[in-house]
Amino acid sequence: MIDPGTTLGMIRNRQPLVHNITNYVVMNETANAILALGALPVMAHAKDEVREMVGLAGALVLNIGTLSEDWIEAMLLAGAAANEQQIPVVLDPVGAGATVYRTNTAKRILDAVDVAVLRGNAGEVATLVGMEAEVRGVESVGAAGDPAELAHEAARRLGLVASVTGVVDHVSDGERAAAVANGHELLAAITGTGCMSTALTGCFLAGKDDPFEAAVEALVAFGVAGEDAAIEAKGPGSFHVALYDALAALDPTSLTGRAKVS
Amino acid sequence: MIDPGTTLGMIRNRQPLVHNITNYVVMNETANAILALGALPVMAHAKDEVREMVGLAGALVLNIGTLSEDWIEAMLLAGAAANEQQIPVVLDPVGAGATVYRTNTAKRILDAVDVAVLRGNAGEVATLVGMEAEVRGVESVGAAGDPAELAHEAARRLGLVASVTGVVDHVSDGERAAAVANGHELLAAITGTGCMSTALTGCFLAGKDDPFEAAVEALVAFGVAGEDAAIEAKGPGSFHVALYDALAALDPTSLTGRAKVS
Amino acid sequence: MIDPGTTLGMIRNRQPLVHNITNYVVMNETANAILALGALPVMAHAKDEVREMVGLAGALVLNIGTLSEDWIEAMLLAGAAANEQQIPVVLDPVGAGATVYRTNTAKRILDAVDVAVLRGNAGEVATLVGMEAEVRGVESVGAAGDPAELAHEAARRLGLVASVTGVVDHVSDGERAAAVANGHELLAAITGTGCMSTALTGCFLAGKDDPFEAAVEALVAFGVAGEDAAIEAKGPGSFHVALYDALAALDPTSLTGRAKVS
Repeated sequence: MIDPGTTLGMIRNRQPLVHNITNYVVMNETANAILALGALPVMAHAKDEVREMVGLAGALVLNIGTLSEDWIEAMLLAGAAANEQQIPVVLDPVGAGATVYRTNTAKRILDAVDVAVLRGNAGEVATLVGMEAEVRGVESVGAAGDPAELAHEAARRLGLVASVTGVVDHVSDGERAAAVANGHELLAAITGTGCMSTALTGCFLAGKDDPFEAAVEALVAFGVAGEDAAIEAKGPGSFHVALYDALAALDPTSLTGRAKVS
Repeated sequence: MIDPGTTLGMIRNRQPLVHNITNYVVMNETANAILALGALPVMAHAKDEVREMVGLAGALVLNIGTLSEDWIEAMLLAGAAANEQQIPVVLDPVGAGATVYRTNTAKRILDAVDVAVLRGNAGEVATLVGMEAEVRGVESVGAAGDPAELAHEAARRLGLVASVTGVVDHVSDGERAAAVANGHELLAAITGTGCMSTALTGCFLAGKDDPFEAAVEALVAFGVAGEDAAIEAKGPGSFHVALYDALAALDPTSLTGRAKVS
Repeated sequence: MIDPGTTLGMIRNRQPLVHNITNYVVMNETANAILALGALPVMAHAKDEVREMVGLAGALVLNIGTLSEDWIEAMLLAGAAANEQQIPVVLDPVGAGATVYRTNTAKRILDAVDVAVLRGNAGEVATLVGMEAEVRGVESVGAAGDPAELAHEAARRLGLVASVTGVVDHVSDGERAAAVANGHELLAAITGTGCMSTALTGCFLAGKDDPFEAAVEALVAFGVAGEDAAIEAKGPGSFHVALYDALAALDPTSLTGRAKVS
């Protein structure tokens, strides 16, 4: 059952560690988003420690936003260790479709690691299932057909939960499907909100066994926080600040009632 | 003609990709500044992808704020690719003059890459033209004579547009010269505002063919945003937040009229 | 004498450079905290320049929050150069106890470098003196006995000033001891506040010769800023922003009177 409020309560109660191997641009921001939600973030990328660190974690977040070879190897090591220990993995294929290197790296991780949730924009996910897409840098600028169909196809072909975010988010595990209409347009005005939604997906994976429901619930929670943050925001800067306040203020007892899921 | 409002309108209309190979300290901040202005930022430093990424971009921003060898090589590769494709390059020689490594790296890039605009503080730029300067870490603490003359000399000797920022900014292409008096002292109270002005110079280079005018217009836009952000700021933290709001709120129809250019 | 106001006045007057080799997550945040306090931050990690850079600095901050081998080597080089030139070093052993790699790296630095102040949470410091501790990622979740005793023991065994932060902070040089009760619970709600307290310890080490007093004074200053920032904060985001405003607004004439030191 889609019940983000109950899962949020469990996350805050347990405070699971969420291990991130992510990009330089959003490290601080995703750490603060995880902390504001109520889980504990850690960033660790050394090949010498990722296997040990992920063993302490409730979920592993892999994000290819600023790549280099050492980091890819660390992601593969951590992913393998997570799989061995049944720790769920969420992958954010930032910029797949923009360069061959990013596309290939995302595919390499998907081949080697059993990913529970793939969270990306329409262009990135379309690229990974071989559909036409235009990705400008890390932004999806050419929508590749119907995003609900895209999520369904990606889930089936890749054997995971596909979480395709946009104005309306679409999540599918190949059988079940949900559209999440929570959110606010200011989320697109600051960098790293996609990465934050991936990090929060990691938190919900650590709080709930069903990855489809966890992915949907994370997007509801993040979208509701975005709605709250927008109320008094004067622009992207004040919205960004209010977003952390809103994540911390999310109320487990009312959150599920605010979900716009269909 | 110095007309930042018109160029801003074109930037927002085209949303050019601005490719940054920049330092760890300001990656998030410059990405958000670029986004707030209305362009699309991407950060990518892998040697495997920088040539491809820059080919998608309207401008390349090179910033040596946190150096290491791999990053320098990526900057050289990206710079060469940008030159081949006539994509304008702006260089920020952060901390040149503070250490030999930074000074030499800035020179190495200037030798190998056709840089359209060099944006730095007086100490950094003076160092690169062999004049006396004191650079403490990444701050220029000893002004090296007249900054207008410095901009002129740097432009002539290095064959580029020199954009020397300070209380008043001085831009020269060796023939034309402009002083920009927009701005606010709080811009010096937060880290990375120099880097932001470089990143915004990249946006304006992507919006206009004349690098001298683009450099001047970027400083006008950033300075005006600083003036607006200062109005209700209580200190560097709230000013920093308001700066993104102000960049996003810049009005193309009134911006040119607010320029303090002489 | 514990007199943070006077030291703060001297820091603002001299504007010492504080050289940081720190983690990716908090680079921007610690740079802005140092700048808001009134010193000059620089981040430099290239082995080619750290010896030269630290020679310009009033203090060196080493922080192992996001490790890899090149960075460790740079820390060892910079630490040795700092020792040669009697430049004080503060070490933040982020996540020691969470992984063997972090524990061993912190010990390796402590063995090779004469560290003036070790600033960590109870779990990290307990790990480094061989006591039982639970560290979840980078958070200390199992307090290891009495923190005052821990600070005393760590100072004696490691031959340095131990600065163990928590709800109440405990600082000891093995003979003297102080408890600092300034601060606010919201400091635990954002990432990097431990790292900020380490960076500010670096500022105070640059402003005062007695490392015990400098460590105490830094925690007073940071705690008072936290108290001020909390007044109008609505959550972790707005608190984070207000923290920089509060650091910049710290008043040297009243700061010492606000110290809650016993």
